Amino acid sequence: MTSREATVPAADPAADDPGTGRVAILRAARRAFTQRPYAEVTIRGIAADAGVSPSLVVKHFGRKEELFNTVADFGPAAAELFDAPLDELGRHMVVTLVRRRRETQSDPLLRVVFSLGNRDERSLLRDRFHEQVTDSLAARLTGPEPTLRAELIAGHLLGLGATLGLHREGAGAKVSPEHIADLYAPAVQHLITG
Amino acid sequence: MTSREATVPAADPAADDPGTGRVAILRAARRAFTQRPYAEVTIRGIAADAGVSPSLVVKHFGRKEELFNTVADFGPAAAELFDAPLDELGRHMVVTLVRRRRETQSDPLLRVVFSLGNRDERSLLRDRFHEQVTDSLAARLTGPEPTLRAELIAGHLLGLGATLGLHREGAGAKVSPEHIADLYAPAVQHLITG
Repeated sequence: MTSREATVPAADPAADDPGTGRVAILRAARRAFTQRPYAEVTIRGIAADAGVSPSLVVKHFGRKEELFNTVADFGPAAAELFDAPLDELGRHMVVTLVRRRRETQSDPLLRVVFSLGNRDERSLLRDRFHEQVTDSLAARLTGPEPTLRAELIAGHLLGLGATLGLHREGAGAKVSPEHIADLYAPAVQHLITG
Repeated sequence: MTSREATVPAADPAADDPGTGRVAILRAARRAFTQRPYAEVTIRGIAADAGVSPSLVVKHFGRKEELFNTVADFGPAAAELFDAPLDELGRHMVVTLVRRRRETQSDPLLRVVFSLGNRDERSLLRDRFHEQVTDSLAARLTGPEPTLRAELIAGHLLGLGATLGLHREGAGAKVSPEHIADLYAPAVQHLITG
C-alpha cells in the first residue's frame, strides 16, 4: 500500500486490484452506512454483503469507525470536482463527475442521498457532505446568496448522478461526458457566475 | 373513502387525516419497496415500521401488490409537474416540486433514487419512473435528442429534491418556491426549449 492510498483509500477504489475485494467491501459499506443507523451497522454484516470474511474488511479498512470515515469522506471528490477556476467550474464539474462515474462504476457524491431514506435523525454522512461539499463550495462563490447557490449547484450534481444511475442504459450512457456538459453545464455555470 | 381517493390514493397523503396512519404507512412502504428487493418486503414489516397493525395496512391499501402499485405510481406526480405549456414548463416544474415537498413533507419523485441503493437488478420502481416520467416527458419535447434532454431534465428535478432534503434547515428552506425557481428553473427551461 502506498502512502497515497493510506491517506485517501476511498478516492479511487477501481484503481485497486479487484481481486482484493476492496471494491466489493466499499460498496457494501456504503450501502450499510447510508441505509442504516450507524449503531446498527456491523463489520460482520458488511463482510457478508461483500462476500468476504470480516477479518478481510478489518485488514483493508480497519474497524467500524475507520471504515465509516473512509465511506463518509467527500473530501477527495470535492477537491477533484472543484479544481477549476470559477469561470470554467460548471463544465469542469459536469465532465469530471461523468468521467468519474464511468471509470469507477460509482458516483462520487450520490451516496449521501441514500441517507435520506434512513431514519437516523443525526446523520454523520450528511454533516460531512455539508461541510466538505456545500460549505466549501459556498466559500468559493462571490456575489449574493452563496449558500443558496451552493445548495442548488450541489442539487444539479446530485441530480446528474441520480439520472445517469437511473437510466443506466439510456441516452446519457451513449454520449460523451463533453456532450452531456454541453447540455447540462450551462445551468451549473449560471449559478456559479450568474 | 371517496372515489378520488380510491383511484389515486398516493397522490396527496398529507390531505388524509393524519390520525388514520395512512401517511406513516405510505412512508414505511416507500422505504421498504425502495430499499429492499420486492420479494423481501412484507406487509408485517411495513406495519411494524409504521407503528400500526398489519390489518390496518391491508384495510387502507390492500395487499402487497396493490400497496406496491400505490407507492410506485409516479403518474399523478408527473401529471401535475408536466401540466404547463412547454415555454413555461421549467418554472412550473420547479415551483410545483418545491410546493409539493413543503405541503406533503415528501418528494414526488425522489424515492426512485433510493432504489439505486438496493441490489435488485430489475427494479419495478425504476421501470415505472422511466415510463411515467422520462418517456412521457421525452414524448412532449420537440427538437434534437428528446430522450437525452428528458433524462437530464429528470436529473435537475431529482437533484432539486435531493438537495432540499439534504439541506433541510439550509438556505433553500428559507426562501419562496418562486425564488428557488428564479435561480434553478432557467437551466431546466434551457433543456426544454433550448
